[in-house]
Amino acid sequence: MSLDAVLARIDSDFPAATERLMDLLRIPSVSTDPAYAEQCDQAADWLVADLQSLGVEASKRETPGHPMVVGHVGETGPHLLFYGHYDVQPVDPLDLWDRDPFDPELQETGNGQVIRGRGASDDKGQLMTFVEACRAWKAVHGSLPGRLTFLFEGEEESGSPSLVPFLQQNATELKTDLALICDTGLFDSFIPAIVTRLRGLVGEDFTITGPTRDLHSGMYGGIAMNPIRVLTRILADLHDETGRITLPGFYDGVEELTDEIRSQWQGLNFDHARFLGDVGLKHPAGEQDRTPLEMIWSRPTCDVNGIWGGYTGAGFKTVLPSQASAKVSFRLVGKQDPDAIQTAFRTYLESRLPEGFSIDYHDKDGAGASQMPTDNPAFEKARRALTEEWDRPAAYIGCGGSIPIAGHFQDILGLDSMLIGFGRDDDQIHSPNEKFHVESFHKGIRSWARILAALT
Amino acid sequence: MSLDAVLARIDSDFPAATERLMDLLRIPSVSTDPAYAEQCDQAADWLVADLQSLGVEASKRETPGHPMVVGHVGETGPHLLFYGHYDVQPVDPLDLWDRDPFDPELQETGNGQVIRGRGASDDKGQLMTFVEACRAWKAVHGSLPGRLTFLFEGEEESGSPSLVPFLQQNATELKTDLALICDTGLFDSFIPAIVTRLRGLVGEDFTITGPTRDLHSGMYGGIAMNPIRVLTRILADLHDETGRITLPGFYDGVEELTDEIRSQWQGLNFDHARFLGDVGLKHPAGEQDRTPLEMIWSRPTCDVNGIWGGYTGAGFKTVLPSQASAKVSFRLVGKQDPDAIQTAFRTYLESRLPEGFSIDYHDKDGAGASQMPTDNPAFEKARRALTEEWDRPAAYIGCGGSIPIAGHFQDILGLDSMLIGFGRDDDQIHSPNEKFHVESFHKGIRSWARILAALT
Repeated sequence: MSLDAVLARIDSDFPAATERLMDLLRIPSVSTDPAYAEQCDQAADWLVADLQSLGVEASKRETPGHPMVVGHVGETGPHLLFYGHYDVQPVDPLDLWDRDPFDPELQETGNGQVIRGRGASDDKGQLMTFVEACRAWKAVHGSLPGRLTFLFEGEEESGSPSLVPFLQQNATELKTDLALICDTGLFDSFIPAIVTRLRGLVGEDFTITGPTRDLHSGMYGGIAMNPIRVLTRILADLHDETGRITLPGFYDGVEELTDEIRSQWQGLNFDHARFLGDVGLKHPAGEQDRTPLEMIWSRPTCDVNGIWGGYTGAGFKTVLPSQASAKVSFRLVGKQDPDAIQTAFRTYLESRLPEGFSIDYHDKDGAGASQMPTDNPAFEKARRALTEEWDRPAAYIGCGGSIPIAGHFQDILGLDSMLIGFGRDDDQIHSPNEKFHVESFHKGIRSWARILAALT
Repeated sequence: MSLDAVLARIDSDFPAATERLMDLLRIPSVSTDPAYAEQCDQAADWLVADLQSLGVEASKRETPGHPMVVGHVGETGPHLLFYGHYDVQPVDPLDLWDRDPFDPELQETGNGQVIRGRGASDDKGQLMTFVEACRAWKAVHGSLPGRLTFLFEGEEESGSPSLVPFLQQNATELKTDLALICDTGLFDSFIPAIVTRLRGLVGEDFTITGPTRDLHSGMYGGIAMNPIRVLTRILADLHDETGRITLPGFYDGVEELTDEIRSQWQGLNFDHARFLGDVGLKHPAGEQDRTPLEMIWSRPTCDVNGIWGGYTGAGFKTVLPSQASAKVSFRLVGKQDPDAIQTAFRTYLESRLPEGFSIDYHDKDGAGASQMPTDNPAFEKARRALTEEWDRPAAYIGCGGSIPIAGHFQDILGLDSMLIGFGRDDDQIHSPNEKFHVESFHKGIRSWARILAALT
């Protein structure tokens, strides 16, 4: 049978597939830092060339930021759009990495062999599972199945500023029957999963200015209001004692779980003590009256992702700084409105500034939450394919992260998305020592071959 | 008359004195940063050579940190110890400086000519007022008056770790009749002043660790406690709504003003609106039931001098960091016990950590407040000498800063200290664009000549 031949080809070609991924991982395509613009471009070129080698009509498409890679192949049959991103997170703090983040290697661990390096899991390794499935298919059949469109983004880790305009400008070209997005994980490291709900995100990067210059605390301490004092009070008051977020109107649009989903999630037997224990934590930090899975899948959050102000070097400097800054983000769910929350947050910030203080906003970021239509039959076909490959029933789950692309595909292209990925909770994406399990990479490739067979 | 000849000599030699100060300012003797150890040494050598040129038996004395400069001259008469420090504060943020902080120059401003550069006011310019007074005296008289001992420290801006052991080990050599310390300011930029009360200081530099690694807020946001959330809550709660510091026992040993001092301070007509307005602030930040002068001279404070955690680079990174850090300092008054306050602060910090979190302490710093005995007749003599030079009645004032040396001189050498200095409030010490008024430098030198004449 032809699928078996493709799977066999995936197995025999796997060492070469791993080498190809290593090549891509060596390109430091950090999208948030303008210093790496050239490397982002280089990663896009690499992917264009690789798609072309599969007979895909692929090209690099310029944007005001990092380029998109778009490819098309096939004339008839179901038309699938595959999305992944080739950009990666910054690597700091670099001294916590065991090796150069952009010099990947295979490592043996207590949990099996892993590919260690920035982007191994998020998202280059995942992106390549689909490409490698196509390569094996092409080797066996001489052509790819159905009609495929590829869309690889280079700004996913920096808020995707060019994505919406690009989708709008190329809507006709990108309109397909279904989107496949590979940027999520297995449930609990072993159970294959299709994510059907994603949290949204609102981010603000701002600086509070008090005194017009840095002051000496000997001369001004006690009489001059310290911007760090103002900032810490503002940030601390974003949560009440029960873990609830205090921003007025914040919970507008947050929906309660249906009984069906609630009982399905209970059936997953999520071991939150182990989940937290793995990273050295003891107690869930969210609203005290919510279950741990609700906290990460169906409840909104507020977190300070960065804070800085005053003297942070070696030794002491008794300075009252002129400024203090923070990056704050909110994860959104249900029908929470990113614009309304951003407005509420700015209103809150400004209402808490002492007279004479000012605030400047820098970067911002925002996207609503998404929910997928599991009544589209493709979902059940994919779930069966995943179940066959992993020998565990695949689950429909939530995801705490934001993959705004799914919302944009719906809004701009009228397209449903299937979010399937093979990451594990401990892949340390966005952290030092990121890795991707070799098993995830291998079975991920095989999973896509099965899904392609099921959908085309 | 001999004093007039010395004053005339000071006036005629003033351009050369300014050049010498410029030379010293060009040495980047930043004591808090180990990268500048060699430059601190170089500044000490410069001072040894300069004192030797005045016939002072001077030498560089090694310590575990930066060296002390000690010099002696004279055999009979009142024995005075002069103290200053040759180290300077770090210069960051460098981009807020109008010029290289270590390439000083004379600049014309709306308030007269200034010497611009790191250390111009704190404390190289002040230290040199005394040295230049001695140089003029020597030029006129062929020798220096009375018996003089010089002690120049190189670690004042980094908590003076070597000072106490050095004073203890050299107590016999340094025991004199009175100490003169030049590291303070004029009152309100024009009225000469002798500082008779100094606040103490307790500082803590610490890091809170929660998760064992940085986490992705998509995966862990809502369930994992963020160390920045913990830190901001802890820091925010250090002040209550009335500006009072909440640390248990913090106000033990804080004394109320006597009626005499209260009315003397009222007579100074301190213009707090202008004082704050000069740096862009509107309202006094201290305890609401205290006067502005109390807030800076006789009330204790708590300030965060630095805070950092998470991602602080360009763009967004939706990280839940493993750690968050702060540098916190308390200015102390009266009989507040630095050790007790440090213990109370650590107890407070640890009591507020969630289970599973840990805290590491790095640098610390501590010294009690000081009060000077104005019944020593030398105080009235010096006050008259200052009044003559500045043509305004000199005042006994408080100082919000910590100059722990005065306490150490009392405790270790049994020595009273007279704190006389010529800085202005807007000298921007510890900040970008530090300056020292040429008038302060000039009249400062003349003031010391008058004081030397009055005391010897």
